[in-house]
Order: sequence, then structure tokens, then C-alpha cells
Amino acid sequence: MYIGIDLGGTNIVAGIVDENGQIKYQESVPTMNERTSEAIIQDIVNLINIAIEGYKIPRKDIKAIGIGIPGLVDFKTGNVARCVNLNWKDVPLASMVENAAKIPVFINNDATVAGLAEFEAGIMKGYQSGILLTLGTGIGGGIILKGQIYDGAHGVASEIGHMVVGENFYDCNCGKNGCLETYASSTAIIKYTKKLMVEDKIYSSIFEKLNGNLDTLNGKIIFDAAKEGDAVANQVINRMAKYLGIGIVNLINVIDPDIFIIGGGLSKAGTFLLQKVREEVNKNIHYNTIATGKIELSQLGNDAGLIGAALLGKHRN
Amino acid sequence: MYIGIDLGGTNIVAGIVDENGQIKYQESVPTMNERTSEAIIQDIVNLINIAIEGYKIPRKDIKAIGIGIPGLVDFKTGNVARCVNLNWKDVPLASMVENAAKIPVFINNDATVAGLAEFEAGIMKGYQSGILLTLGTGIGGGIILKGQIYDGAHGVASEIGHMVVGENFYDCNCGKNGCLETYASSTAIIKYTKKLMVEDKIYSSIFEKLNGNLDTLNGKIIFDAAKEGDAVANQVINRMAKYLGIGIVNLINVIDPDIFIIGGGLSKAGTFLLQKVREEVNKNIHYNTIATGKIELSQLGNDAGLIGAALLGKHRN
Repeated sequence: MYIGIDLGGTNIVAGIVDENGQIKYQESVPTMNERTSEAIIQDIVNLINIAIEGYKIPRKDIKAIGIGIPGLVDFKTGNVARCVNLNWKDVPLASMVENAAKIPVFINNDATVAGLAEFEAGIMKGYQSGILLTLGTGIGGGIILKGQIYDGAHGVASEIGHMVVGENFYDCNCGKNGCLETYASSTAIIKYTKKLMVEDKIYSSIFEKLNGNLDTLNGKIIFDAAKEGDAVANQVINRMAKYLGIGIVNLINVIDPDIFIIGGGLSKAGTFLLQKVREEVNKNIHYNTIATGKIELSQLGNDAGLIGAALLGKHRN
Repeated sequence: MYIGIDLGGTNIVAGIVDENGQIKYQESVPTMNERTSEAIIQDIVNLINIAIEGYKIPRKDIKAIGIGIPGLVDFKTGNVARCVNLNWKDVPLASMVENAAKIPVFINNDATVAGLAEFEAGIMKGYQSGILLTLGTGIGGGIILKGQIYDGAHGVASEIGHMVVGENFYDCNCGKNGCLETYASSTAIIKYTKKLMVEDKIYSSIFEKLNGNLDTLNGKIIFDAAKEGDAVANQVINRMAKYLGIGIVNLINVIDPDIFIIGGGLSKAGTFLLQKVREEVNKNIHYNTIATGKIELSQLGNDAGLIGAALLGKHRN
């Protein structure tokens, strides 16, 4: 058995997960990310103890604890290098939890562990290589090569949201222009919808849906409007799919995996989004005699982060 | 001992190469690429025999023959899938040479084998992962991960010249817009120089250098003019470096190797280009506490193609 922790900006989820990636027990608390890292880490330790007691499992039967973090790990120090949402910089998360819990602790990026979950227990099962793109507030990436997590030489591989794929009307938080996440995250499609409606003054049914209050706009509302035929929403989603297509073709031209997986909150748009992305990819492949990676939707959805975190220990042992 | 063949659009070079990547014997003939694939392959077989006789080595002491091709290999069939310069499509190069020479034959993309050469005998020696970018008429890529050639699941990985990094004023041969090779190949910088001089009518010392005949413009002339302070040439090279920087940062964000190597004809511009590229990469790295890959110039230059082709056999055995 393994314990997984999905450390998010909103909630901390802890779970007991078996070797096959089945969640056996689950508990969560709000992150309250304005607190210190020490307070949040204390909550993680408490959740671990609650899970062990709640599932009534002897502590010695837990092989490892895995934590998926919304940021970058510095594999040289073993510390969390940076979590923008939590305002963490160089936090020794793994060693602090390990000292308290007396169980080996492994940490990795949340999208990377979600990729591992899809490989071990989801849509990537049976493939040797795959890339998961998590489309949420930003865009994360998880890369599996030869059946293993691929972290790169300095642990910064798979930062797919910051791959430049075009030239955009606004800069990315990272300082660059044209990052994939400025085209295909929920932040990006909200921004582009507002630009069309407010700046370019184009009418959209979204205005009525929100009773005129654009501050409550979110990705789901845009996708719903697009499915209903709203022109602005369709322009937004088609642009998102265009750049996702470019991003995936870039990844084919560089990594060429067996399979791509679309995950994260926006993937709930389902085949409506998937079909558009597949079409854009097909348009941009310049060698048509050779097969390239399949493109599918995530199978584990929200559970991927928890399952993948837990299975970090299985993967490292 | 190994035999390497560097099959280019202009020349076919054959050589006998030892285990350490030292060239012991070398011979070449013009490719005359308007001929049939059969005629060109016959020349390759003849060159192999000439090399064996010229170096006076018993045929049984040649462990393998490796061929670097200016195109894509279909690893499923073992055939050359496509060589645009040679007008080849689905040519069974390896099996035809193997049948004639009675020695095992391995083939791979020319930039990939050049990367292998730098790994075995050049600037990448001692590193576990690296990416070679060959800046020539187009841009090729060679990826080494965990000490091995990385081809991807369908053999189309490392087509780095076709990674989209911006939105450009002309389309790539592949049909897409914004491919790295439309910014940073010799074709690209010639095109942009002409655009500035002819379309935008900006004065450049290049006009005098060429006695007014822009048809003879090449990469070296642009770099020479830039080094002498010509404003147009500097604008062109700075733009090239900017997009090379974006391309390398994309590769850091996706693959994160130990080292990047700038090779191909344009790399003869040396530290003048290297410094600019390093500055552009540093500008675009958004996590400054973690080290990222070094960026260096190719060490083996023109010989990399021959040496790497020869060492394909060492690598596969």
C-alpha cells in the first residue's frame, strides 16, 4: 500500500492507494494557501496519520508516501524549488514529512504524477511512452518514456505550458510571449473571450448567461456556449484547439511518444475539444506515411493526481 | 572497425572509422542527386569496396556499415521514408546495401548520427543527454538521452527544425508557419536579409560585397557583414539568435538535456553566434535557481556525419 498526497492551491487530498492504483481511502482539507509552509506541511502530516488510522492499516504496511506539488522540484536538493500558488521557494517538503511520518517520501510535479497515474492505471496503460497535458488555470505536462517518469537532466523537463508556440497579444506570467498556456489554459480562453466581447465589442450569448457580469466567466461557460453555436465562443475554442494542435505537433517533432493525453479541468469538454485538436494535429503533420501518437482524453480525471502521487513510491522502489 | 557513409545532397562520403570515432580512411564522390536511387546506392556500394581495398582491411574486420541520410527513416520497414533533396520515397537503402556488401547495415537521420558522433567522440563526451542542432540549409536535430540515440516511438523525434516557435512572414516547406528553420537556417537568414534590402529598401554594405547581385548571398556573407557592424546584417543575426533562443528554451522546458550543441554550416560563425544565443536563452529561463543545459559549439564539424554514421553499428551491437 502507498499513501498519495495531492497538494493543490485549493485542497490537500490524501489517500491510501494499492499497487494497481485503486484508491482505498480518501480524506481532504482546504489548503488555505495564505498560511506558512510549516502550517501546510503540518496538515499533510496530520492527514497521513488520519488516513492510516481511518483505513486501520499498520504503519509498516505503507511502503512509501508520494506528494504531487503544483510547482518545480529541485532534484539536486530534494526540495520544492518553487510553487507560485503557495508562494513557496526552496521548501524541504519531503524531508520534513519523512522526519515526521517515518516513511520514505517522494515528491514530483502534479502533472508528472498525473501522467504516471494514467500510465499505471489509466489510458496510457500498455504504452511505453506518453505525454499528458493538463489543461487548467495553467498547462502542466507529464512525460513517460520507456515506462518511466522523464524528468530531464535538471528536473525541469515537461514544463509544456511554457513551450512557445506563437506570438500572442499578451505575455505569459513567466515573462515570455507565446507560451502554450497563454493560448489553451482556462485563463487564456477567458482572456481571449473578454478581449473579443469587451475590446472588439462583438456580441456573444455569454453576456446573457452571465447577466452582464464578465467577472464570473469560466472555461465551462465558454465551452457550453461554443457547443450551443455561439460565434465568439467558437472562435475562442477554435483558436485554443489550433495552438494545442501546434503544441502537440511540436511534441511529435521533438519527442514522438506513443500517445498524448488531454487532462485537467478543460478536458471535461470531452470529444467536442478532442475532435478539434485531432483535426489540427492532422493538418500539421508533414510526413503522412509514418504513424504518429494517438490523442485521447484522460481516463482518471481528478483522481490522477492522488493515484500518481501514491505510485511515485512504487516507481522509485 | 566500422564503415560510415555520409549521404548528402552534394557528396557521398565514405570512411573507415575506429571504435573511438577516429577517421582512418576517407573517400568521396559527387551525389548527382538527379539520378535514380539505384544508381546512387550502387555508388555507395562501390565506395564501400574502395574503402575496404584502399585501407587494406579484411572485410570480416568491418563490424558494421552505418549510413546517415538527409531525411526520415521508417523504422517499421527499415526503409528511407523520405529524402526531399534526393527525391526519395520509401527506398530500401539498408537492405540493398547489406545484400551487396554482406555486412550489417544501420541507417539513421544525418543530424541524429552527428549527435551520436559528438556524444562518442566530441563535445558531448561524458554527458548522458544532449541535443545537437545542425544549422544549415534547413535545421536538423540529434537527441541523445541516457547515453543512447533517441528516435521516438515512430522514429520521427528530433525533427527540431519543424518545431513552431513564432509566427513568420513566410511559410515553411512543410506547410506550417513559424518553424524554427524559417528563422535560423541559412535559407531563413538569406530570405530575411533580402526582405530588408529589397522589400523594405534598407541600405546594407552587403549590396557592395555582392556587386549588386543578391543571388549569390549566403550565410557566411551575412555573418561577415554583421561582425563588421552592418546594421541590416546585425538585425538579421539578432533575429536568428532570438528564435534559436526560444527554440532552445522550448527544448529545455520539454527535454531538459545536459548540453546543447550548435553545429552545421552556420556554426562556423563561432562565438559571435554562440554568445548571442546564450544571452537569448538566459533571458527566457523563468526558474533561475535551477541550472539548465550548457550551450556549446560542435567540436567535430563536418566530420560528425561520417563518424556518427560509422558508430551506429557500435551503438546497436
